Amino acid sequence: MMEKNEIWLPTLITKTAQEGFELAIKLSRMGVKSAQPNIEILKKLRPVYSEDANGLLSSSQIAAINFQTIAAANNYWR
Amino acid sequence: MMEKNEIWLPTLITKTAQEGFELAIKLSRMGVKSAQPNIEILKKLRPVYSEDANGLLSSSQIAAINFQTIAAANNYWR
Amino acid sequence: MMEKNEIWLPTLITKTAQEGFELAIKLSRMGVKSAQPNIEILKKLRPVYSEDANGLLSSSQIAAINFQTIAAANNYWR
Amino acid sequence: MMEKNEIWLPTLITKTAQEGFELAIKLSRMGVKSAQPNIEILKKLRPVYSEDANGLLSSSQIAAINFQTIAAANNYWR
Amino acid sequence: MMEKNEIWLPTLITKTAQEGFELAIKLSRMGVKSAQPNIEILKKLRPVYSEDANGLLSSSQIAAINFQTIAAANNYWR
Amino acid sequence: MMEKNEIWLPTLITKTAQEGFELAIKLSRMGVKSAQPNIEILKKLRPVYSEDANGLLSSSQIAAINFQTIAAANNYWR
Repeated sequence: MMEKNEIWLPTLITKTAQEGFELAIKLSRMGVKSAQPNIEILKKLRPVYSEDANGLLSSSQIAAINFQTIAAANNYWR
Repeated sequence: MMEKNEIWLPTLITKTAQEGFELAIKLSRMGVKSAQPNIEILKKLRPVYSEDANGLLSSSQIAAINFQTIAAANNYWR
Repeated sequence: MMEKNEIWLPTLITKTAQEGFELAIKLSRMGVKSAQPNIEILKKLRPVYSEDANGLLSSSQIAAINFQTIAAANNYWR
Repeated sequence: MMEKNEIWLPTLITKTAQEGFELAIKLSRMGVKSAQPNIEILKKLRPVYSEDANGLLSSSQIAAINFQTIAAANNYWR
Repeated sequence: MMEKNEIWLPTLITKTAQEGFELAIKLSRMGVKSAQPNIEILKKLRPVYSEDANGLLSSSQIAAINFQTIAAANNYWR
Repeated sequence: MMEKNEIWLPTLITKTAQEGFELAIKLSRMGVKSAQPNIEILKKLRPVYSEDANGLLSSSQIAAINFQTIAAANNYWR
């Protein structure tokens, strides 16, 4: 279970586009974690997220939405 | 049931990106609550939101959309 | 059935973020109403919108998309 | 079947927010029509779009996405 | 199968909003084609895209997302 | 399995709109890869992504979202 005061998102700014993409994937995972903080239940669901094609496509879509936010925050690393 | 005049969203401005992400998750919950204000019915549905992989992915996607709005409101905490 | 010339959306401007969120939910309902103006058919479908977890999540997602539009219109109530 | 050279979208500009919302719904229908121009097949599918709760929610979501575009085009009718 | 060096998207700029909408639909088709370049497999799947209500709604939604991009590129044909 | 330090996304800038679209499709694939880095499991799921109509539509939708980001980064290749 996440520590209540743990800082896991200090900033949206990243050095490169690729790091921004990795942060987008992290945000997607945190969205699921926030909706279900109990790690035991999450563990049981993990196969859906990582071994089910539709679950993986959903994860990829959420990452794409988050990447829009992060890319704008970084002025698209231009 | 939510008090009719209760103020639960005074502002979109948050101090940090992480607080903005937490507000995004709160907004997602309020979207469901607004569509079904009866707390007894909501309670029966809760397992879908918190223990069903696809329900959790949907919640995470809604949070990602709300986070776009909140991040823009905060000028991405730059 | 909605009066053909009824004005139900005079403006996207609201006084507060919370009123903007409520307008977003109203827009989501109007989207469904516009696609099916027959109130009798809508009544039969209502349980899906309000008592089915996936229906509620879909409604919440549409509200989140509409809230993006309304928040931008209001310059995020900054 | 739509005339090949018929002009059905001369502009995204509308006088009011409500007319913009109605245009958003029209665009959603045109999206489906463009993917399946055969009117006989469309007629058979119509019950899904207008009497199936999930079909109506999908239509409403597409309208919400189109409304974002139209609202931006109209500078949110500010 | 698409020629490897074929240019099918020279620009996002179109003369009118309607041409922009048609380009949005073309982009949606190209998205599917890019994920499955084998034309024989695509042919077998075609009935889902054009005769299945949910498939048509998905296509319409993708077109709506692409239309956002194209409309912004054209400064909304203002 | 992807090398941990491999640079696969050096920039969002592309010469043409079409190259931007191809990058959008690459990003969609990387989103799935990041959620499931085990190449053996990915191989088993591949038929869903490339031979299932709904899987292809989901892929196309993710590409459309990524294309929004890339098009904005490139100022729409205007």
